[in-house]
Amino acid sequence: MIFTSDNAAGVVPEVLEALGQAAAGTAPAYGTDPWSEAVEARVRTLFEAPEACVYLVTTGTAANALALGCLCPPWSAIYAHQLAHIERDECGAPEFFTGGAKLTLIEGEQARMAPDGLRQRIRIGRSGGVHQVGNGALSITQATEFGTAYSLAEITALTAIAREAGIGVHMDGTRFANALARSNASPADMSWRAGVDILCLGATKCGAMAAEAVVLFDPALAEPFELRRKRGGHLLSKMRYVAAQMEAWLADGLWLRLASRANGLADRMAAGLQAHGIPVLNELGANIVFAEFTYGLHARLEAAGAQYYIEPPWQPETGPAEAPVSVRLVCSFATAEAEIDEFLELIGHG
Amino acid sequence: MIFTSDNAAGVVPEVLEALGQAAAGTAPAYGTDPWSEAVEARVRTLFEAPEACVYLVTTGTAANALALGCLCPPWSAIYAHQLAHIERDECGAPEFFTGGAKLTLIEGEQARMAPDGLRQRIRIGRSGGVHQVGNGALSITQATEFGTAYSLAEITALTAIAREAGIGVHMDGTRFANALARSNASPADMSWRAGVDILCLGATKCGAMAAEAVVLFDPALAEPFELRRKRGGHLLSKMRYVAAQMEAWLADGLWLRLASRANGLADRMAAGLQAHGIPVLNELGANIVFAEFTYGLHARLEAAGAQYYIEPPWQPETGPAEAPVSVRLVCSFATAEAEIDEFLELIGHG
Amino acid sequence: MIFTSDNAAGVVPEVLEALGQAAAGTAPAYGTDPWSEAVEARVRTLFEAPEACVYLVTTGTAANALALGCLCPPWSAIYAHQLAHIERDECGAPEFFTGGAKLTLIEGEQARMAPDGLRQRIRIGRSGGVHQVGNGALSITQATEFGTAYSLAEITALTAIAREAGIGVHMDGTRFANALARSNASPADMSWRAGVDILCLGATKCGAMAAEAVVLFDPALAEPFELRRKRGGHLLSKMRYVAAQMEAWLADGLWLRLASRANGLADRMAAGLQAHGIPVLNELGANIVFAEFTYGLHARLEAAGAQYYIEPPWQPETGPAEAPVSVRLVCSFATAEAEIDEFLELIGHG
Amino acid sequence: MIFTSDNAAGVVPEVLEALGQAAAGTAPAYGTDPWSEAVEARVRTLFEAPEACVYLVTTGTAANALALGCLCPPWSAIYAHQLAHIERDECGAPEFFTGGAKLTLIEGEQARMAPDGLRQRIRIGRSGGVHQVGNGALSITQATEFGTAYSLAEITALTAIAREAGIGVHMDGTRFANALARSNASPADMSWRAGVDILCLGATKCGAMAAEAVVLFDPALAEPFELRRKRGGHLLSKMRYVAAQMEAWLADGLWLRLASRANGLADRMAAGLQAHGIPVLNELGANIVFAEFTYGLHARLEAAGAQYYIEPPWQPETGPAEAPVSVRLVCSFATAEAEIDEFLELIGHG
Repeated sequence: MIFTSDNAAGVVPEVLEALGQAAAGTAPAYGTDPWSEAVEARVRTLFEAPEACVYLVTTGTAANALALGCLCPPWSAIYAHQLAHIERDECGAPEFFTGGAKLTLIEGEQARMAPDGLRQRIRIGRSGGVHQVGNGALSITQATEFGTAYSLAEITALTAIAREAGIGVHMDGTRFANALARSNASPADMSWRAGVDILCLGATKCGAMAAEAVVLFDPALAEPFELRRKRGGHLLSKMRYVAAQMEAWLADGLWLRLASRANGLADRMAAGLQAHGIPVLNELGANIVFAEFTYGLHARLEAAGAQYYIEPPWQPETGPAEAPVSVRLVCSFATAEAEIDEFLELIGHG
Repeated sequence: MIFTSDNAAGVVPEVLEALGQAAAGTAPAYGTDPWSEAVEARVRTLFEAPEACVYLVTTGTAANALALGCLCPPWSAIYAHQLAHIERDECGAPEFFTGGAKLTLIEGEQARMAPDGLRQRIRIGRSGGVHQVGNGALSITQATEFGTAYSLAEITALTAIAREAGIGVHMDGTRFANALARSNASPADMSWRAGVDILCLGATKCGAMAAEAVVLFDPALAEPFELRRKRGGHLLSKMRYVAAQMEAWLADGLWLRLASRANGLADRMAAGLQAHGIPVLNELGANIVFAEFTYGLHARLEAAGAQYYIEPPWQPETGPAEAPVSVRLVCSFATAEAEIDEFLELIGHG
Repeated sequence: MIFTSDNAAGVVPEVLEALGQAAAGTAPAYGTDPWSEAVEARVRTLFEAPEACVYLVTTGTAANALALGCLCPPWSAIYAHQLAHIERDECGAPEFFTGGAKLTLIEGEQARMAPDGLRQRIRIGRSGGVHQVGNGALSITQATEFGTAYSLAEITALTAIAREAGIGVHMDGTRFANALARSNASPADMSWRAGVDILCLGATKCGAMAAEAVVLFDPALAEPFELRRKRGGHLLSKMRYVAAQMEAWLADGLWLRLASRANGLADRMAAGLQAHGIPVLNELGANIVFAEFTYGLHARLEAAGAQYYIEPPWQPETGPAEAPVSVRLVCSFATAEAEIDEFLELIGHG
Repeated sequence: MIFTSDNAAGVVPEVLEALGQAAAGTAPAYGTDPWSEAVEARVRTLFEAPEACVYLVTTGTAANALALGCLCPPWSAIYAHQLAHIERDECGAPEFFTGGAKLTLIEGEQARMAPDGLRQRIRIGRSGGVHQVGNGALSITQATEFGTAYSLAEITALTAIAREAGIGVHMDGTRFANALARSNASPADMSWRAGVDILCLGATKCGAMAAEAVVLFDPALAEPFELRRKRGGHLLSKMRYVAAQMEAWLADGLWLRLASRANGLADRMAAGLQAHGIPVLNELGANIVFAEFTYGLHARLEAAGAQYYIEPPWQPETGPAEAPVSVRLVCSFATAEAEIDEFLELIGHG
């Protein structure tokens, strides 16, 4: 019963097999190998973006920080939701890779930025001459850190504000596949057609070992990206092994099948919780359920071996049995239905 | 009728005279001159801090950013009020000089941080392991950007939280003299005895040309400060000319007399406004009055040649005659009583 | 006939197999998994360093730059040979990760720093007060970029100078295994016993996919290293897959067997070249041969499909048939004897 | 007998008087005052550059570092002579303000870069793809740190190489006035007509308190410069006091008269030394004499109260009486003839 994170899951067999096939023999280094070229071609096709440039890295933090570094100068603000991974979980990597840009936080229900808040902050960003950092970039997480997703209209509303302010748009898509799998949209609809300039497309959490694609819809960003990636130590010499993962993951719709499976498990979890009268806190947009437990329930589940995080993490670890505590339950492509059912059963037998 | 900023004021004669006396002859460069030594000795005496190290720079932004750089690593949060100068008016200098620390904003009435808000954020700062930036430093502005001042008890309440969290305390004292002159406290009371580790003591806004003293109450910070100052291009070769300003300004209580005069003018302004039924928005803690005008009044005053800023600056520049607009009126050591009276008279004859 | 780089080689079966075994099931993320713990334990044993801390990253550039960041402040000099990878091939990653430290280059025959040059530069580093960057760190590459190796005495002579100057020592060990395999020394002899504080031990070029271990012999460096790694985007969530590679590579002496094989192939290459009257330029200390070809020979070999680099890369690509051109020939663990023999035969039939 | 540096000299009366005239009354802050506007207009006329943008700062280190930051990205090399002030005396400020660019040192007699060396390094800079930092900027010091000056032809030869490589040219002109005063060239000849993009024109060492003008001959650099200046803490609020200095210094040819006087004193010093059989080491291009003393003479002069530096500073402080030691003797606008004569007489009576 491990619901800590999709990071805890292993690797899907197709990815492992692809690695095996790429393992032997020589290949050009530093991303000039056939696997890397195949990934770029495939992403271009999938996203209907024949000029997009695609670069691979091994962590989502690197993908996000390198992308933001390409979009905005040090003396600018990056607008993001206050729960954004780039703000809360990357130890300041965006500040490091941008040379000290300022993460400026926007509120909004369900971890979705409110357009009015963004508009107001951008107006402030314009008011200061050289005294204030200017407007730098907009960063949207899809699906969000709260397990919700933006609709296409919501994304477009935000990116339109950014466009009007003359700033670029980054999408942290560590769970882009999950959001996409729940929608009727095409990959293009949910990215560049909705106004996104750079998509960080994560495979790691959904079946790969360590593979994140940075998709630059504007090829003019390619050169600075390549220099930043190398300078950041993120250009792997044997890049074929990252490319082989990504290629296998994207082939034949595997990525969406895996994401769908994880999403469905989250639905099963949420429905089960609600059946037991436990409030589900988030609108399900991906593979994560936020719920309100009591400390009593939490203690009982932990004692039984269930693993998950209380979230936000600064809640007390223990409390009165009836006191509420919010928790995060993540289902992965590899979670077994039985694991969820066992968990729900435990809850029911309280 | 110029109430834009105390930056618009000139230089007090005593400072100019001191410059003249220091002008000729040779002197050792880079702060090893007798004037610099005299300043350090005087600050130590005034602040009852015989081990304090005192360094001079020519802007408040440099003073603040260098001080913060000495207090916290790049992977940490600096806690400051959301109206703080370091957040809103330094174009990201703190981020630049710290290597990308994260300004984390605390709310609070009258531009004073609320201890509860600080306590909550520090708890968050502890919760993230390597994933989140840790607790870095606390930055307090005294007097605040809203023209208010913290009481000694309020400062101590905040610094006690910082101390418990193991982080240092920076005080942006660009108008420290104004706050001090309104209190019964000694310089030591309002700085190190209240828990401040580094005070940036500004003379520029109160009679000097360009002179800010960074007072390090912990001498262990001296070496990194000196290296950072040089590397930041802030070590003047002919430092005696900054030192001579500061020395004249601190001598014989001149600094407090100048500050008192500016404070008294602000009182006169506030009383006059209120007599005309105009709401004064801030508790007067220094030499600045925030008031709520109407756009009609604002237009009339501007047309008559009065100069001041609407604040916050992202308010519309014009509006319906009856609509409110908040404004900032700064009195300096050099403002004439007659200037204020003329301004108030104009208001009265609306 | 591919002698471009050991980066072009694939993965040794043992590493692939280990990945397969680690592939499925859940595991704690971010390096808290059993594989990571096993690697640390194994490195401690192999290096007779029970307190060493071991961290994994996926590129040598990241390993080097993170290590240097832990050793020296921004206002300091890193002493390295003028051919060092950190100077010539990392796009300024050391400058990025140190916040702008200054690579200061030391000359020396066969890509080995001359102790006198180092001593002289360190004396300069002491002379400048705040005006000059101070002494920061010493960086030694073992085996060197010229395919040579330092003797233990040579390493110790350099590190003793560093020790006396109070600065730390970094070893870029991307081909440490190759140097070690040619010596009688133990891993400890060639690292901490010779005065090394941080060893970057590379497996990627010698059989792994992407696995580099940063070995901190001083555990006090662990905390800043962990923060820097995360902030640099180099903390992989599914770290077990890097750890599994490293664990398999180090187990049962595999790393030294692979390195020995590559070294032996370089010997075979060098001997063959010399038999054909071609000057070998470097003292063989690893798996790389530098030789002086003529442009005529070079053109003929390229036409026949042989792949390798001219080195230094700023030599003209073509030239008079008799004019000399220096070339670099790299043998890997996976190079076939037949490949070398075919290459030598081609040369012989000129 | 103080020949340590022109930094030890005081302020010329005209500058002090100008400060007095600017002292009182209000003025717009942050460089929008009439004095700042007058300086820009005057520089444009003097340099025949009607579109040049002129910004003032208070140290040469800030001027140089900000200028370099505008010319080149972090992942690039700055080519400078190995004796350049930016390399040896600014504690890494160029690295700090560029975000970690790499100072790459070019040799050359008399502290003048050799064009061949520059050409060779630029060829290397082109060869590395993303693995090596690219070509960033050329930095020329005029007059040089060795008290010599480049001819116009020599400057043009270097800047032509930079132009061909597509990189910008910075001139560290902390003693530009001295070099110009010794030539028949116009200010334009020695700067933009010779290929310079940014000139840092220093007044501090030649009669001002703290005033350096950054002259951007390409107005496209203005916006990033302004942001960098503010972010670096170098935008003074009461900028009129820097502008008044610069304005007085440039008016009526004062700057060149002061520089000429200092130059003439250096000639007097050099001639006197040579008359005593003491080798003068540098070709006089400004106001500095490098000479070869013996340790015996040095000890005797120091004992008599003469002040100057041994240079390079890492020479031993004492030595055998007959052993040579090279020294630097700086004459300023304020040095008295009698001071030099007294010094020479001391030498003669050895």
